[in-house]
Amino acid sequence: MRVAVLGATGYTGIELLRLLDHHPQMELTYIASDSRAGLQVGEVLPHLRGVTTASFEKGDVARIAACADVALLALPSGLSVEWAAQLLTCGVKVIDLSGDHRLPPALYQEWYKKTPPEAVTQQQAVYGLSEFYGADVAQAKLIANPGCYPTATLLSLLPLVQRSLIDPQTLVIDAKSGVSGAGKAATAATHYVEVNENFKAYKVGGHQHIPEIEHILTRENPTGERVTISFTTHLVPMTRGILVTSYAKLTGSHSTEELLHLYADTYRDHPFVRIHPQGSMPQTRDVAKSNFCDIGLHVDPRTERVTVIAVIDNLVKGASGQAIQNLNLLAGLDPTTGLFHSPVYL
Amino acid sequence: MRVAVLGATGYTGIELLRLLDHHPQMELTYIASDSRAGLQVGEVLPHLRGVTTASFEKGDVARIAACADVALLALPSGLSVEWAAQLLTCGVKVIDLSGDHRLPPALYQEWYKKTPPEAVTQQQAVYGLSEFYGADVAQAKLIANPGCYPTATLLSLLPLVQRSLIDPQTLVIDAKSGVSGAGKAATAATHYVEVNENFKAYKVGGHQHIPEIEHILTRENPTGERVTISFTTHLVPMTRGILVTSYAKLTGSHSTEELLHLYADTYRDHPFVRIHPQGSMPQTRDVAKSNFCDIGLHVDPRTERVTVIAVIDNLVKGASGQAIQNLNLLAGLDPTTGLFHSPVYL
Amino acid sequence: MRVAVLGATGYTGIELLRLLDHHPQMELTYIASDSRAGLQVGEVLPHLRGVTTASFEKGDVARIAACADVALLALPSGLSVEWAAQLLTCGVKVIDLSGDHRLPPALYQEWYKKTPPEAVTQQQAVYGLSEFYGADVAQAKLIANPGCYPTATLLSLLPLVQRSLIDPQTLVIDAKSGVSGAGKAATAATHYVEVNENFKAYKVGGHQHIPEIEHILTRENPTGERVTISFTTHLVPMTRGILVTSYAKLTGSHSTEELLHLYADTYRDHPFVRIHPQGSMPQTRDVAKSNFCDIGLHVDPRTERVTVIAVIDNLVKGASGQAIQNLNLLAGLDPTTGLFHSPVYL
Amino acid sequence: MRVAVLGATGYTGIELLRLLDHHPQMELTYIASDSRAGLQVGEVLPHLRGVTTASFEKGDVARIAACADVALLALPSGLSVEWAAQLLTCGVKVIDLSGDHRLPPALYQEWYKKTPPEAVTQQQAVYGLSEFYGADVAQAKLIANPGCYPTATLLSLLPLVQRSLIDPQTLVIDAKSGVSGAGKAATAATHYVEVNENFKAYKVGGHQHIPEIEHILTRENPTGERVTISFTTHLVPMTRGILVTSYAKLTGSHSTEELLHLYADTYRDHPFVRIHPQGSMPQTRDVAKSNFCDIGLHVDPRTERVTVIAVIDNLVKGASGQAIQNLNLLAGLDPTTGLFHSPVYL
Repeated sequence: MRVAVLGATGYTGIELLRLLDHHPQMELTYIASDSRAGLQVGEVLPHLRGVTTASFEKGDVARIAACADVALLALPSGLSVEWAAQLLTCGVKVIDLSGDHRLPPALYQEWYKKTPPEAVTQQQAVYGLSEFYGADVAQAKLIANPGCYPTATLLSLLPLVQRSLIDPQTLVIDAKSGVSGAGKAATAATHYVEVNENFKAYKVGGHQHIPEIEHILTRENPTGERVTISFTTHLVPMTRGILVTSYAKLTGSHSTEELLHLYADTYRDHPFVRIHPQGSMPQTRDVAKSNFCDIGLHVDPRTERVTVIAVIDNLVKGASGQAIQNLNLLAGLDPTTGLFHSPVYL
Repeated sequence: MRVAVLGATGYTGIELLRLLDHHPQMELTYIASDSRAGLQVGEVLPHLRGVTTASFEKGDVARIAACADVALLALPSGLSVEWAAQLLTCGVKVIDLSGDHRLPPALYQEWYKKTPPEAVTQQQAVYGLSEFYGADVAQAKLIANPGCYPTATLLSLLPLVQRSLIDPQTLVIDAKSGVSGAGKAATAATHYVEVNENFKAYKVGGHQHIPEIEHILTRENPTGERVTISFTTHLVPMTRGILVTSYAKLTGSHSTEELLHLYADTYRDHPFVRIHPQGSMPQTRDVAKSNFCDIGLHVDPRTERVTVIAVIDNLVKGASGQAIQNLNLLAGLDPTTGLFHSPVYL
Repeated sequence: MRVAVLGATGYTGIELLRLLDHHPQMELTYIASDSRAGLQVGEVLPHLRGVTTASFEKGDVARIAACADVALLALPSGLSVEWAAQLLTCGVKVIDLSGDHRLPPALYQEWYKKTPPEAVTQQQAVYGLSEFYGADVAQAKLIANPGCYPTATLLSLLPLVQRSLIDPQTLVIDAKSGVSGAGKAATAATHYVEVNENFKAYKVGGHQHIPEIEHILTRENPTGERVTISFTTHLVPMTRGILVTSYAKLTGSHSTEELLHLYADTYRDHPFVRIHPQGSMPQTRDVAKSNFCDIGLHVDPRTERVTVIAVIDNLVKGASGQAIQNLNLLAGLDPTTGLFHSPVYL
Repeated sequence: MRVAVLGATGYTGIELLRLLDHHPQMELTYIASDSRAGLQVGEVLPHLRGVTTASFEKGDVARIAACADVALLALPSGLSVEWAAQLLTCGVKVIDLSGDHRLPPALYQEWYKKTPPEAVTQQQAVYGLSEFYGADVAQAKLIANPGCYPTATLLSLLPLVQRSLIDPQTLVIDAKSGVSGAGKAATAATHYVEVNENFKAYKVGGHQHIPEIEHILTRENPTGERVTISFTTHLVPMTRGILVTSYAKLTGSHSTEELLHLYADTYRDHPFVRIHPQGSMPQTRDVAKSNFCDIGLHVDPRTERVTVIAVIDNLVKGASGQAIQNLNLLAGLDPTTGLFHSPVYL
């Protein structure tokens, strides 16, 4: 399959280049970066000198359509929606790594306080959480690649929500991320001295991933009731990794062991999701630079709550790796093709 | 006042030496470290060469009693209780930084699965959270210095619990700490390579600070009902700092502004607790190397929950600084004496 | 003594506020920051809420002259020289933390490739390395506070150069600094993700501190010959600290022990410089957040070279602490006044 | 080719598992770890759960000989030499990642102050710096895999030394490494709190890599004169990466451009060594998790010295990657087989 990457100099773009370099079945035919067009990749990204002789090109829909079957959009929100519409018109399938296509129009308007761009386009998008929506992904023309926090959160909660084992209205989700999630822009908030030896919460009560999570939880809630969550994001002084700790009241009496069995069943055919044995919890380095999502859980009989902990690499399973996983499905390949590598533990 | 420090080579001990070096009214007359007895402080701790000419001495109750009015115990749990008993017998007041004296015997037995040592002694201890129990502290002979997590947690929740503004049974407390909290022992878990670029939860559902927090929350709960909490601790790849994010259902309708006013009132005469203005949240570096506890909060009308965030320096307000604060009260001084310095922002 | 700080929101400015807060003899009467004028210090720097109630003011020469005896300029190079000239005219003494007044005009022109601003002013400045030029500092009206790298380098090499114990033309100086030395501006080079888990050299062969070091080494070279050095700076993924490793051929046969005695003699009356015993070398944390400079050395008989290692905190002894040390001398105080605190080891 | 790994739970062992997992032509048939024998790999190393179903086995020469053509020894120095001798006797080729086989007996005795074990064995070993000794490596039975510091140092200096472009007696080599080079043992020196926010030199004048570097430089010195170097190692607060800054007097007049051409020529057929363009210097992240060695240099006409900077990943090109590169040569494969992947930039 011939693949174009748009926005190749951001962190998710760089990661797409790395993952496609490993991939045996994908041909990277177009690397777009308007700001660096004309330069060799190795001039802009010295770690790639000698690895590739390709050059960055201006984004050009006609030329992309001539040489690529699928375009991976690693562009900022707001920009993606425009490129997606044009590429789709020219017959190029699109996997959008931005947030532009993840929400239904009504939710988009409620949270972003503006009219959703290209509402029709948005409704055509398939939500690319392929462990749950893989069949739709394989048939899609436009895939909304899930956000990093929603990926870890949904993989760790959907097995409970789908079976009404927890009361979703009691969900408290406490999420922590490394700094690469904030992107490459140099701001006061990403200055080394401000981040190093510091820990903080941000966007308390207002993170844009809240509606994305609530939308999917509601869709999978057997009662149909709209799910509302408490969700707080924190910044960890490290480059990569997300850990999400979720708490909810159990609706009945279930042991840790019982729930772990249920998770193992749910993900039996999904090798990127790994369930920890009882008494053990995942850490972010267990999945570093890989497409795995590791999950552990603990039932506390004192509080009748379950605590679920999930980790992913925000740039891989939370972005570029999941995009390749969706790309594999689009190509009719096994989802693990070119992607099932050992994490880089240290 | 003449002060002895026992266990002076651990992290809280080193911090006591630093803080007492700043203090205008305390005379450090005895520095005990059995493992380093006979060596000059500067030989063992090169950063103190030239700063002090003192030497480490063997712990010796009679000699301590001869030269000190108060002993600060920066010893491991299990050891503190024995030293405390002997020192008290000799008329030396004790501030114990370990966990030995923080729980009533029944709770101690329930959580540690062993008979509490010196149960009688324990019941004599005053819990040294001086913003709430300062009057008792001033009269005490034995002070149980609060744990690091309980300090941040209780300062951020007691204003709500005391007034029944939240349902304490809905409390979810998600806590994060730097590595110095794990102490100076070299273990697989404190190896640089294992901690760096990693984030993990630990002791999920079983942290020994849970009964300490629940005990005080229950004591201050106007209904008298025993409080049971969900409490998870996480390790942040940084040296110092604790941030605690707490979530609870409000019992009535209250705005962020209203609750912030309440907090400002509660801590009006307690300058070490600083309340953030609406829309702003504290980060750990705001209090680094200082005795401050900074608190922010947010009411989410969607979920009817309040999110409270508190930060402290685990080695200062969470240990050695709070011990000095209690020492000041014992000495009849203003609690801020020698302790009210600017945080070290970077 | 009444003190004004100009440029109070940069890293050296913040550090001046912290150190003056500790100081028993200095009154901070004016805090200038054009960009934040009118705001309370605690609004801009949350770690100082409650510590100070002062506000930032616009820089205003007349008003500064009315309330301050000395002005500490923590301003960018190029700006300092203008403020210094005006303040001196109004009778305010100046300690300039920038590089504007450290070089004689000819060297300035050679390295900066432009006409030196206010050459006359520059020639009036005393170089504020007070361990060597303290007598001049005490009488000065304008003090050029040394650069961070030159401070560590000169303190570690002058004892050898002054006695012609090394051939200064063989000097190789390999310097490493934490990121705070790059200042508070958010750039690609200071982005957390670019710095973290990375080590690099920068400005190889062209660092602006080369002429400053060579100028003083030449001045103190008994032969009068102009000294030319190899000097390379590297960026360490940490916030604070400088370590300088210097190598030179010995002119005669000297043991490590002999040279250590010489250093101890040289700095006998200078308590901020601490000499390590044989076989031991300093590390940056030994001096963290303090005004100490720790030095160790090793003579290698195989190569007939001496290796000297010096560490400082770049923001304290390398900038703001050294400025306070000079301020003390200006005020006729002991140089250690308000400045001789324990390093913050962890 | 069938490969055994001995010492698979240390950092270089873990890295061998990762790299062999990527390799298309090598079959990993035996994973030895005496301490973990009988356990599944994924039980000991959670990041490998699901990636491999293999188990650790006891080291057993006969069984290894029955199933492996080559053994990679990731064992401590002192232990390797014993295993190597036995494996060679049984016809198994050996690549030794330890320091046991890198020095001729006389040098071994001089630096380690003890009789070299199995001196005969040592003399059979080929030094596995394959960019220079590839032809010998391909024919070897026992390969001494170079040390991490020597790899970066020699690749960056041999082009100059072989052509007598520098005076090797003026060489000053200032080396910096991340913490993984210290291995997995939990010691005071590897405790997170001791390393984090700290920079230090270690083993000044006495590092065991000095004789290894001097031995090869002497061997390649056209004059035959024994080379003696100043070499200092430093610890960087990061997990991976080595940067070596070398300084030497040029013997004649050469420009930066001229020398860069020479390096490009030297490494034309060695794709793992990449030469930076003039004015640009490599940083450790450019080669992170890859087998590349990036080199930049600068001639300073003021001092007539050249500064050469080289970076490698200490665990890949400095250990396990270089071992695979040598394994490829042993197998008659292109040295890049299974090893020529994009660095992991962030």
